[in-house]
Amino acid sequence: MPTLSQKAASMPASPIRKLVPYADTAKARGIYVYHLNIGQPDISSPQIALDAVKNNTLKLVEYSHSAGILSFRKKLMEYYHKYQIEVSADEIIVTNGGSEGIMFAFMACLNPGDEVLVTEPFYANYNGFAIYTGAVVKPIRAKIENGFALPPIEEFEKHITSKTKAILVCNPNNPTGYLYSREELELLATIVKKHNLFLFSDEVYREFCYDNEKYHSVMDLKGIEENVVLLDSVSKRYSACGCRVGVFITKNKELYNAAMKFAQARLSPPTYGQIFSEAAIDTSQEYFDEVVREYTLRRNTVVEAINKMDGCFCPNPKGAFYAVARLPIDNADRFCQWLLEDFSYENKTVMLAPATGFYSTEGAGANEVRISYVLNVDDLLASMKCLEEALKVYPERTV
Amino acid sequence: MPTLSQKAASMPASPIRKLVPYADTAKARGIYVYHLNIGQPDISSPQIALDAVKNNTLKLVEYSHSAGILSFRKKLMEYYHKYQIEVSADEIIVTNGGSEGIMFAFMACLNPGDEVLVTEPFYANYNGFAIYTGAVVKPIRAKIENGFALPPIEEFEKHITSKTKAILVCNPNNPTGYLYSREELELLATIVKKHNLFLFSDEVYREFCYDNEKYHSVMDLKGIEENVVLLDSVSKRYSACGCRVGVFITKNKELYNAAMKFAQARLSPPTYGQIFSEAAIDTSQEYFDEVVREYTLRRNTVVEAINKMDGCFCPNPKGAFYAVARLPIDNADRFCQWLLEDFSYENKTVMLAPATGFYSTEGAGANEVRISYVLNVDDLLASMKCLEEALKVYPERTV
Repeated sequence: MPTLSQKAASMPASPIRKLVPYADTAKARGIYVYHLNIGQPDISSPQIALDAVKNNTLKLVEYSHSAGILSFRKKLMEYYHKYQIEVSADEIIVTNGGSEGIMFAFMACLNPGDEVLVTEPFYANYNGFAIYTGAVVKPIRAKIENGFALPPIEEFEKHITSKTKAILVCNPNNPTGYLYSREELELLATIVKKHNLFLFSDEVYREFCYDNEKYHSVMDLKGIEENVVLLDSVSKRYSACGCRVGVFITKNKELYNAAMKFAQARLSPPTYGQIFSEAAIDTSQEYFDEVVREYTLRRNTVVEAINKMDGCFCPNPKGAFYAVARLPIDNADRFCQWLLEDFSYENKTVMLAPATGFYSTEGAGANEVRISYVLNVDDLLASMKCLEEALKVYPERTV
Repeated sequence: MPTLSQKAASMPASPIRKLVPYADTAKARGIYVYHLNIGQPDISSPQIALDAVKNNTLKLVEYSHSAGILSFRKKLMEYYHKYQIEVSADEIIVTNGGSEGIMFAFMACLNPGDEVLVTEPFYANYNGFAIYTGAVVKPIRAKIENGFALPPIEEFEKHITSKTKAILVCNPNNPTGYLYSREELELLATIVKKHNLFLFSDEVYREFCYDNEKYHSVMDLKGIEENVVLLDSVSKRYSACGCRVGVFITKNKELYNAAMKFAQARLSPPTYGQIFSEAAIDTSQEYFDEVVREYTLRRNTVVEAINKMDGCFCPNPKGAFYAVARLPIDNADRFCQWLLEDFSYENKTVMLAPATGFYSTEGAGANEVRISYVLNVDDLLASMKCLEEALKVYPERTV
């Protein structure tokens, strides 16, 4: 057979899914597995949005506009206005999930060999989309000791070369849950302006901010309006990952038009998902208040439990529904596999994501795991009990 | 602002959409525009599939498997079996429309600079997806005189270089409506085998074959099973373009696994579209019989009308719902624009796609247009009347 492409060879397998066969084996042995490895919320989607799809009257499921259904884009203007993000319908492209928005940004802005700076640990699929276009993700290390705050600006300066074309930020952050402050974003804006870079901002966890901390968007930064791309998705906001509806927003007309050519090549985003998402914008504030209350409890459950465990440390994240914890282990991949293959407590075990998958620096994250707190508090308590018991008997425990 | 990528610069604007502003202007002047420019069928989607979405009981719209919902993939096995295509669920990846399948095939198989042979005229977006990955589409000219049959095998041989990595075929063909014979596909298989190429086959118009002519799939060719990728979509089959559900099928395990890594990076295809598409597989044969009957009438209406017009020629296509016609013009882009800007007959005009957009050879197709016969017979008759009257008065008419 003909040989495959170099991109196929360098494309990483999903770090979240590589342990799935071990989970399947555990289940086959009759062991219950708590899934804290993947960002699939268990919260119900807003009824108003579910109903909009159920009550649709389409007789013919036509292509929508390549930029998305106009009434949906107009409705999105209302939604963003609530967050002081002022955009017009012709600055929005509706995408096949947030993923496609990242791809459009990379395709339209980056040449093969161009570099994108990303704080590490980072959402693993950024690497995948960089490979799509031949660009290179350059990690800048954030540290667990200070809760994964923005690394000092000098670290960014140190990594900027003639190949650097963009900075990509995820706020609130996946996998760390870190919520960037206004001051941190202003610092990023300074570098972006100084070095004439694009700033891509993945803000899909906007609704998930805790302890009354305030989220700030890069869309609100002055003087870099032409450099900014906002990437968004309804997946997490409305527990609607399967809708595959995201958005790509920029005020840069030339970039918008370029992204539209990529959007036209794939014709349109999904119609039913857009019907869902347009209706979802009228979701009541009570829904989100309840979600935030619930996730706050869940976060507290996980963070408190881990910090009580001997030799463990978990910063207290202010956003998203992830936490990265440091454990007394030196090979997170092996530990997470062992949890599924060789361990159970009262016939249960827990599936975590080794943090190594979120670092591109070789060896980094070997003593860290990402925990998605997407289960109810009782299940989280049971999961944490499993983890605690596991660490007591793990043969390769380090301290 | 930072400069955009070279891909953004070389990405073509959609040839089908570039006349849209002129159509809008015509409408603003109160002129009715018959849209024969785009492959958006007007036939209703199957009720069984529309109902499946309306009756869904999801409370939470979760990610599906990156390869698509398993029950849907199993159901697809049944569907393909009816066409003597024997595939298993783990040879299928459900994609975001047929478009994404093309992208996966290109990404997994082609390096930048690699060449894909495609008969010309061809579906314009193939070029777009080649640009995504840095590959190059090499056209092999099919001729209107013989109805756009497969060019002689020597033409393929002549174009094969050390860079040639794949042949891409669309059967039944968009934009020509040509249906490849078993013998033509066997010839392609010979070259594919001899030169160790991939064979990508876009067969989204399978259900649209006329005059009892038989469709053959590349999946049925012996000895090249490892080289073949079948690309498909529910868009045309069920008048469901907005579902954004396609499939990528290969029996080549290594290629399948590579494509899955690209599929995992974008997480999953759309859930509602998959619910629709799974149910649609139980669409009755009567639905398709009625559709084929209707499209046969439409095709006859268009082809007969054009061949009666002075100086015009339209081959009789055996599949899909497109025809490419030769008109007494020498600049199809200008003619199609003129139809919208300067012409009307009884306050109506017709929007056609200049065939130039389907050729990558400079200057080719200048006297041809693509007609999508996606309107009812009465509208088609009125459209053809418009075209006839237009050609009578077109100031740049050539013969």
